[in-house]
Amino acid sequence: MVGIGPGGKLDRTRRAEEAIAACEVVAGYTKYLAQIVDLTAGKELVSSGMTQEVARCRSALERAAGGASVALVSSGDAGIYGMAGLVLELAAGLEKEIRIEIVPGVSAANAAAAKLGAPLMLDFAALSLSDLLVPWPVIRRRLEAVAAADLVVALYNPRSRKRTRQLEEAAKIFSAQRPGATPVGIATALGSEEERIVLTTLDRFLDCEIGMRSLVIIGNRCSKVVRGWFVTPRGYEL
Amino acid sequence: MVGIGPGGKLDRTRRAEEAIAACEVVAGYTKYLAQIVDLTAGKELVSSGMTQEVARCRSALERAAGGASVALVSSGDAGIYGMAGLVLELAAGLEKEIRIEIVPGVSAANAAAAKLGAPLMLDFAALSLSDLLVPWPVIRRRLEAVAAADLVVALYNPRSRKRTRQLEEAAKIFSAQRPGATPVGIATALGSEEERIVLTTLDRFLDCEIGMRSLVIIGNRCSKVVRGWFVTPRGYEL
Repeated sequence: MVGIGPGGKLDRTRRAEEAIAACEVVAGYTKYLAQIVDLTAGKELVSSGMTQEVARCRSALERAAGGASVALVSSGDAGIYGMAGLVLELAAGLEKEIRIEIVPGVSAANAAAAKLGAPLMLDFAALSLSDLLVPWPVIRRRLEAVAAADLVVALYNPRSRKRTRQLEEAAKIFSAQRPGATPVGIATALGSEEERIVLTTLDRFLDCEIGMRSLVIIGNRCSKVVRGWFVTPRGYEL
Repeated sequence: MVGIGPGGKLDRTRRAEEAIAACEVVAGYTKYLAQIVDLTAGKELVSSGMTQEVARCRSALERAAGGASVALVSSGDAGIYGMAGLVLELAAGLEKEIRIEIVPGVSAANAAAAKLGAPLMLDFAALSLSDLLVPWPVIRRRLEAVAAADLVVALYNPRSRKRTRQLEEAAKIFSAQRPGATPVGIATALGSEEERIVLTTLDRFLDCEIGMRSLVIIGNRCSKVVRGWFVTPRGYEL
């Protein structure tokens, strides 16, 4: 399980590169394999589409059970909205014990925060607005708790073409607890040529372009903008 | 501002290594500078102790204002319990505008999670138990909210020799909402030779060795242990 970072070559770790170099088979979502094409010459590639996570993990594990060394790549960090958990669960169901290593990476939230400034400087939560795998009432309860506890939040999977209501509800929940001028950062297509970084406010961010490749960070009551940077002060006396 | 990852060379990104290589001056906490000694030959080093964050940032900024290229290093990710926010705030107070870049890194929580399995697989919170900079009632309210919302939590600065009450209170808060058998992972001195990874449970973890260099991850109601790995299932139908 290898996390390859948010997109560009420069944000990969050496451990990730060495792990991929050491494997015979490299498996992953087609788009992620395209990001590591410089590392996979001469290797067998097993690519698959976006929604075929279980099949992709199963076939990677089958190859590994057959004796091959397999690198299964995830963007960002494999352990955060990636596939590490799924692989470990599926592996536990196999008769044969497979040696698994998880290589951490720079997660999307870390990379987005660095582009925006330092919004995640201290206590924060990461929440996904996708209700494909977690029921919406659970997500809503988490949003309410995080909003009330004045935690900065990084929202993964904020909106898709068909799924727009969730982000609207989230905006309403946070607006009930924080001023309209609270900074909100939007990072889209990180590490790619279409990368777009937008700094806006809680009362205006719903009007911005936000899609499947976006990550939205909502500040807390202490967050502010200094010289164009989104900062959550850590509380040092300056 | 350069995040150098959790400790070992292999978990640095190329962007971090290139940023340090491109600078004339490298500033940071003495221990962090020791971790990048392979990158700093021939460079001017400005090291300082653990509690001198403000002075360290100020002197780095002064050097930068004087025209030097300066890399200020943080362990893990500079933007998560690191110094990125402090630097941006201090820079805003200077007359001269300084060009600042923040280089993200693998954060301690990411690295600890990868060693333990996949505990942060989906929604989670990162909270620091240090009440030096944030008042304890605020931290306690956050712990209560996170516990009630069934979020996995990564606890930074869980305990020091003098500060032990906070972790006991946190244990009590989580025990009120989650079964005693909930998995708890403890990662200490990540990336160093003294690295220690312990997997235990909510009703027993307070008896484990936990100190300033530890990070504690408490699972949610779905978290489980499979073949020795700490996993929070993402909800895929297997």
